[in-house]
Amino acid sequence: MNFLEERIIKDGVVKEGNILKVDNFLNHQLDVGLFDQMGAEWARRFEGVEINKILTIEASGIGIACITARHFGVPVIFAKKSQSVNLDGDLYSAEVESFTHKNKNNVIVSKKFLGPGDKVLIIDDFLANGCALQGLISIINQAGASVSGIGIAIEKGFQNGGTIIRNMGYRLESLAIVDDMDAKTGKITFRA
Amino acid sequence: MNFLEERIIKDGVVKEGNILKVDNFLNHQLDVGLFDQMGAEWARRFEGVEINKILTIEASGIGIACITARHFGVPVIFAKKSQSVNLDGDLYSAEVESFTHKNKNNVIVSKKFLGPGDKVLIIDDFLANGCALQGLISIINQAGASVSGIGIAIEKGFQNGGTIIRNMGYRLESLAIVDDMDAKTGKITFRA
Repeated sequence: MNFLEERIIKDGVVKEGNILKVDNFLNHQLDVGLFDQMGAEWARRFEGVEINKILTIEASGIGIACITARHFGVPVIFAKKSQSVNLDGDLYSAEVESFTHKNKNNVIVSKKFLGPGDKVLIIDDFLANGCALQGLISIINQAGASVSGIGIAIEKGFQNGGTIIRNMGYRLESLAIVDDMDAKTGKITFRA
Repeated sequence: MNFLEERIIKDGVVKEGNILKVDNFLNHQLDVGLFDQMGAEWARRFEGVEINKILTIEASGIGIACITARHFGVPVIFAKKSQSVNLDGDLYSAEVESFTHKNKNNVIVSKKFLGPGDKVLIIDDFLANGCALQGLISIINQAGASVSGIGIAIEKGFQNGGTIIRNMGYRLESLAIVDDMDAKTGKITFRA
């Protein structure tokens, strides 16, 4: 078991409805020391891969992406979930359905920050059905940039997002893949 | 001029409606090296002050708070802008009006993560009318915790948020205070 799987076993809570609560270290209270270990691990796995930008999506991806960016020496761009009055009209956008919030959002990135030639590492906290990831890939494609890889903290291996992304040929590095979890017993099974 | 004021002069854009666009380094594309300088500066200014948690608000505060947290060796908690189905019912909440988005949000923090005895440093990217900050202070008060200090990247000194917060006796450390800006000329005047 790696450091993240150990932490999920220690502090994660399985809830009905395929919900894995990790809000005490990953997505409400944030353990930045853990994020630093995650960043170091992705830097190891993506060693030698050309990456000049990290793209994530608000809100829970931002902290992980920023700490990880220090290991790559690149800036972070975060996709925003609705049009802000502070953003110019020149935007890439994609529609994303949220598994957690049961709603659809338009996610946007200013055209100033992504373009042809950019080699992008996508970072996010969770991968379930992959909708958020597909939206971010769409934005990278709209920009004429390329996806260098994808780093996910926790993949729900029993949902199909990871399979779809791997089938499309993207290099997906999930630090913990949950293949099964049981709200009654609390048991979590990771992919070996 | 300090490093942040220099960066604002170099890359910030003044827009009509008292808007200072710093989206190429602070709140859309994120310069984590700059955030690291900001974290080091707050660590210097709050040296000797008891701090065991950093509280911020989604989305643009999160990256700055996480990089800053490494300098303090404490976890980050971010207040969420709407109730998520993943959050338990046991919440602190406060109503916050957004200057940028012209709307009101309920911001929430799980009671698990703040309680009596916590010494909290609030970190955020902008301070204008201070509504977000007042909401975060309210949440800290609801928890019976105490505010050790407040670190703001850019304070709009021509709005009254900073004055209100300082009048209430809070220690507010804004790294750049804009006293005047002009959308026609692009000129930005910082408080000396």
